[in-house]
Amino acid sequence: MATIESTRPRLADLDMPVGKRARLHRLLYGSGPANGTLLVLPIDQGLEHGPRDFFPNPDSADPDYQLRIAREGNFSGIAFQIGIAAHHMGNFPDVPLVLKINGKTEIPSAPDPISSVNATVEDAVRLGAVAIGYTMYVGTPRQHDDFVQFRQVREAADRYGMPVIVWAYPRGEAIDKKGGRDGLYAVDYAARVAYELGADVIKLNMPKVDETSLRGAPKEYAELVGISQEEGMRMVVRSCGRAFTLLSGGSKVGDEDLLEKVNTAMNAGATGLIFGRNVWQRPFDEAVGISRRIHEVLAQHGDDAA
Amino acid sequence: MATIESTRPRLADLDMPVGKRARLHRLLYGSGPANGTLLVLPIDQGLEHGPRDFFPNPDSADPDYQLRIAREGNFSGIAFQIGIAAHHMGNFPDVPLVLKINGKTEIPSAPDPISSVNATVEDAVRLGAVAIGYTMYVGTPRQHDDFVQFRQVREAADRYGMPVIVWAYPRGEAIDKKGGRDGLYAVDYAARVAYELGADVIKLNMPKVDETSLRGAPKEYAELVGISQEEGMRMVVRSCGRAFTLLSGGSKVGDEDLLEKVNTAMNAGATGLIFGRNVWQRPFDEAVGISRRIHEVLAQHGDDAA
Amino acid sequence: MATIESTRPRLADLDMPVGKRARLHRLLYGSGPANGTLLVLPIDQGLEHGPRDFFPNPDSADPDYQLRIAREGNFSGIAFQIGIAAHHMGNFPDVPLVLKINGKTEIPSAPDPISSVNATVEDAVRLGAVAIGYTMYVGTPRQHDDFVQFRQVREAADRYGMPVIVWAYPRGEAIDKKGGRDGLYAVDYAARVAYELGADVIKLNMPKVDETSLRGAPKEYAELVGISQEEGMRMVVRSCGRAFTLLSGGSKVGDEDLLEKVNTAMNAGATGLIFGRNVWQRPFDEAVGISRRIHEVLAQHGDDAA
Amino acid sequence: MATIESTRPRLADLDMPVGKRARLHRLLYGSGPANGTLLVLPIDQGLEHGPRDFFPNPDSADPDYQLRIAREGNFSGIAFQIGIAAHHMGNFPDVPLVLKINGKTEIPSAPDPISSVNATVEDAVRLGAVAIGYTMYVGTPRQHDDFVQFRQVREAADRYGMPVIVWAYPRGEAIDKKGGRDGLYAVDYAARVAYELGADVIKLNMPKVDETSLRGAPKEYAELVGISQEEGMRMVVRSCGRAFTLLSGGSKVGDEDLLEKVNTAMNAGATGLIFGRNVWQRPFDEAVGISRRIHEVLAQHGDDAA
Amino acid sequence: MATIESTRPRLADLDMPVGKRARLHRLLYGSGPANGTLLVLPIDQGLEHGPRDFFPNPDSADPDYQLRIAREGNFSGIAFQIGIAAHHMGNFPDVPLVLKINGKTEIPSAPDPISSVNATVEDAVRLGAVAIGYTMYVGTPRQHDDFVQFRQVREAADRYGMPVIVWAYPRGEAIDKKGGRDGLYAVDYAARVAYELGADVIKLNMPKVDETSLRGAPKEYAELVGISQEEGMRMVVRSCGRAFTLLSGGSKVGDEDLLEKVNTAMNAGATGLIFGRNVWQRPFDEAVGISRRIHEVLAQHGDDAA
Repeated sequence: MATIESTRPRLADLDMPVGKRARLHRLLYGSGPANGTLLVLPIDQGLEHGPRDFFPNPDSADPDYQLRIAREGNFSGIAFQIGIAAHHMGNFPDVPLVLKINGKTEIPSAPDPISSVNATVEDAVRLGAVAIGYTMYVGTPRQHDDFVQFRQVREAADRYGMPVIVWAYPRGEAIDKKGGRDGLYAVDYAARVAYELGADVIKLNMPKVDETSLRGAPKEYAELVGISQEEGMRMVVRSCGRAFTLLSGGSKVGDEDLLEKVNTAMNAGATGLIFGRNVWQRPFDEAVGISRRIHEVLAQHGDDAA
Repeated sequence: MATIESTRPRLADLDMPVGKRARLHRLLYGSGPANGTLLVLPIDQGLEHGPRDFFPNPDSADPDYQLRIAREGNFSGIAFQIGIAAHHMGNFPDVPLVLKINGKTEIPSAPDPISSVNATVEDAVRLGAVAIGYTMYVGTPRQHDDFVQFRQVREAADRYGMPVIVWAYPRGEAIDKKGGRDGLYAVDYAARVAYELGADVIKLNMPKVDETSLRGAPKEYAELVGISQEEGMRMVVRSCGRAFTLLSGGSKVGDEDLLEKVNTAMNAGATGLIFGRNVWQRPFDEAVGISRRIHEVLAQHGDDAA
Repeated sequence: MATIESTRPRLADLDMPVGKRARLHRLLYGSGPANGTLLVLPIDQGLEHGPRDFFPNPDSADPDYQLRIAREGNFSGIAFQIGIAAHHMGNFPDVPLVLKINGKTEIPSAPDPISSVNATVEDAVRLGAVAIGYTMYVGTPRQHDDFVQFRQVREAADRYGMPVIVWAYPRGEAIDKKGGRDGLYAVDYAARVAYELGADVIKLNMPKVDETSLRGAPKEYAELVGISQEEGMRMVVRSCGRAFTLLSGGSKVGDEDLLEKVNTAMNAGATGLIFGRNVWQRPFDEAVGISRRIHEVLAQHGDDAA
Repeated sequence: MATIESTRPRLADLDMPVGKRARLHRLLYGSGPANGTLLVLPIDQGLEHGPRDFFPNPDSADPDYQLRIAREGNFSGIAFQIGIAAHHMGNFPDVPLVLKINGKTEIPSAPDPISSVNATVEDAVRLGAVAIGYTMYVGTPRQHDDFVQFRQVREAADRYGMPVIVWAYPRGEAIDKKGGRDGLYAVDYAARVAYELGADVIKLNMPKVDETSLRGAPKEYAELVGISQEEGMRMVVRSCGRAFTLLSGGSKVGDEDLLEKVNTAMNAGATGLIFGRNVWQRPFDEAVGISRRIHEVLAQHGDDAA
Repeated sequence: MATIESTRPRLADLDMPVGKRARLHRLLYGSGPANGTLLVLPIDQGLEHGPRDFFPNPDSADPDYQLRIAREGNFSGIAFQIGIAAHHMGNFPDVPLVLKINGKTEIPSAPDPISSVNATVEDAVRLGAVAIGYTMYVGTPRQHDDFVQFRQVREAADRYGMPVIVWAYPRGEAIDKKGGRDGLYAVDYAARVAYELGADVIKLNMPKVDETSLRGAPKEYAELVGISQEEGMRMVVRSCGRAFTLLSGGSKVGDEDLLEKVNTAMNAGATGLIFGRNVWQRPFDEAVGISRRIHEVLAQHGDDAA
């Protein structure tokens, strides 16, 4: 296989309807790094994992905490559910809202998860959001329901010029048997699916490129054993096409490991980061501090299109 | 884990659309204690358990009985189903109506319950209700259907400015295996789910904080062994965010036990009580009597915002 | 348990929207006994059981036969499906129509029956019906679908002022294990469910009060062993609240047994009877004859509100 | 059991909305025998069985072949699916169209078949059809879905004055255990179901009245052992009420057997025939020839209402 | 069985609404061979198989590559999903778009596949497409859902005058047991189903006519053992009726094998080819080169209707 090339899309180069363009411009050039890269703060853990994720830092149970970090840490935007948006955004009109419109709990843990739509694009418009977030589980037996549900959301988003950020998550037994949910095959496939179905921005995990993950996958991936982490990420970014790529943070890791992930992703062509627990599970000043270090990296990857 | 703080939300401090604000004002300051706390009388047992719950006090089979208690006992409002509302509210225009819009029977007892919507927000508007009630079963295999059903209700409620009271009930085998439906983990999670999905008021049971319940839960809760009942309740109130918290009464207990529950809940930051059988399974004068004793507690927790 | 009281509702005392009031007035005071009691002739057996129910009296296969009985026997109304209504009502504009809007066949015999809606309230309006009939199976695994289906019917009925008669039928394995589908627990519960969900008139079977039926039920019913048939029926009438109660006839029995059932039901507070096979499985003159004997009983239970 | 009487309905005697009356008049008096009887040519085998049914006569694979037979053989109308109607009716505006709006393939062969709606009544109106055809499978576990699907079709048909021809087909294991899908019990029941649910014309198979079929059925049918084929058919016609009865042809049989079926059906009160393979699996001249012999029989059964 | 005849339909001869006629004219005479034959380039593999299909030629991961081939290779049109269309068509307004509106991934591999609708006919209209593509799986247990889903698409297509290209794919265990998904029985049946349900163009695989495939099928096909590949293809073309037939390319084969397939199909009456991997898995010049060789064949089969 030849060298993999990937390029970070620039909004100015994209074919994009005016409403989406205006809202994406706000995210990419009107807030956060404001140089065409992204740094987004998500709080979907209260729904996805329950309040226990707030225990390491009890302040984090109040969404105002994350909103203050988003403001002080200069994030591009914040992502959470309708109930939080309705009760907490009023005092933070300066923080761009990504309304996460679906979600599920960790109980019961299902082999065929589907993330239920609990808010609409119309809600997002009403609340002044700049984008919506949608979790798509690729590879599960309920994929049909998921695709149909996504189509309805995507249609509404096209109607209102609302950008769509897809949390592209491989899941299910079939995925587990082909290198696992974080393996390159799974992440790469999920990225392409999200792109083909109409995502404007795609959030995904750093793909695993270790031998076990690759050998479990279809033979085209098994033959890639030996590629670097950055090459793997570059493939995934390429599969996102002209959609912007956001790297997930996952559970909390050390600062240097985190910054290495940031560097790898940005070098590979990602547009930015969406880091939650790695930010808000810290005390306020620390949270703002790590954000600044991330900003330093992002500053090296921006364009001058603003 | 640090000391848990929780505060009772004051309507005046909340970001709230005008229709919801007006109706919640009626509940919080225009009836019942009228000091920002709540005392609600529910009669959903005829549907949920059948007429047998009326046997201890046959008068209670006629909803006029509960309506007279609500009036004489100075309740904030009364909650029941559409059929009762249509036939009985006509003579009690002074009693605020919470239209319970879903429900199910106790037969068959299903491992994956869902509470079926049998009335609409439009029905509630037509009947002059000040809020709707919705039972959400968190943790069951049918959670997807429940979330989608709730979204439709929530959207209509937003359209009409109708406050939403969620009966947040953990259920299902997965819950049973993690400390039980009344364990702190389950109640705390259900509270947060209801909040994130858009509840204005959340009704829940006093969480169990005994060792067995906590040890069965995820490790973050297992580490809490030893906390007090009030601390447990305080956590749950915190997970309700800026939604008002209502404590359920459950099956009938002795007066002092009941009042202790009331004190614990109110000290922990709950906004009020929703007590059914503990009130109307008594003869009329007794029912009014216990209501007065509860009022005495609520008087100590009100604000002066009216 | 104290003495059970129940009273037959009088239309004039009820809180009732004008369209429903007008149509119920036609049924209660404008046809049949015309004294506030009811005598309804149903022919849903062709769908529910098949043509074999017509074999004892081949004339009965032609719905004109039942329409002539309804006219000559002075029934309050006749109940059947859309196909029969469309083809046969044209020559009988004087007979009030209860359009039965759902139904199912006896094959296959399912443990989780649901009665499928095959006509709408709009059909009923178009055909000049005075009420619709809906079969609700309480206690089956498909109760959720049934409740949702009923809500849609009930909403349309409210929109058009169309009275709703619920065939309240307990069914399913869970019911079989708690005293059976005709046991007092089951019938009593089904009556209350129909009332809470919005029935205006409730059709049910005479509840069994024998020891076996009661002992199989929850303990509150087991404690009732020894009550009389009339007391059992009185309980059920009470659970119907302010809805009118109609006693089903079931399969054909002897004249004296039938009249005893009529007396028991009316003494217990029922509003009337809905008898099919017990009437139309007889030759014409006999059918009119037994109707007259039933009228004699009903005449003793009417009010003077007309 | 007394002698079974049945009469062929005359359109002029029926209570029928004007649109349905006009279209049925076209079928009954404006084409084909034009004397109140019917001869319909169906081609649903391409979908139901696949192209193999055309192998005995390759010309029959082109629907123009059947359309030419319908024209030359003077059929009352032709029945097929939307795709054929859209591509082939343009050159045959003189042949009345019965748009078959549902169907299924023979693979997989399901124990719980449902015939999927693939066209609408609106399509039928747009194409100038005089009726729609709908296959209803009576007795299967999916009967609920079928009844609901049929209701939607029937409502649209009522809205547009479009006559509904129901292919009334008993199916499923429960049916197999009660004398089989062609046994008198099953066919008789299916006929009544179609009538009660709103069919204007009912297509069914000649019921089997042999001892095995009858003894397997409920006792009321078991007692009929010994009745003649014509008596069996007469019962079924009676169960069709005021709907017109069409006899199916089924797979190809010899000429004399076919004509005997015709005679039996017409003597029993059927309104006509719907014969496909028995007609178009023959060379053109033969097909027209057998049609003429059938016309001779129908001429003896017409009325003079035209 | 007699000699099988089949003819390639000419648009001018077809009964076709004006919108469909205009768009099909663009495909058949306004682009590509422009002589009434078709050469279409599909890229649905990114969704159906994942990015691994792009590994043999990494350039192919960027849909602009295929668009350039379509332009330089003079294709009639290009087919892909909504996400690609939205991001890539803007620079290629000269390439006619076939919007593929449904799709699925290869994980999990289901015995009852259904291709989920992820875009609408309205999307196709908005994007200026000349046709939509729909995958129909014939023979699976979910066929009912598929047929209903297709009807909704077909109705919208009729409303907007949008031609419908059906990917007619036999699938499922029942198919596997009757000669396999590529056997003549399966392909022939699927072709007819697509035609009867309303396809304007039908895409299918070259049917297998080897002894094993035929003997596994129903006896009418088993009797065909010995027919040639072209005769088999001719049968399938005949079953497509007046719909245009497109031959699929499948996985990559050698040039001569490919051209032989082209010749066989065109001689049998197919209207054209829809070749993806066989074209774009090659370097650009080679891809254009093979396209030219295919054009040479198509030039021999065109009509002069333009």
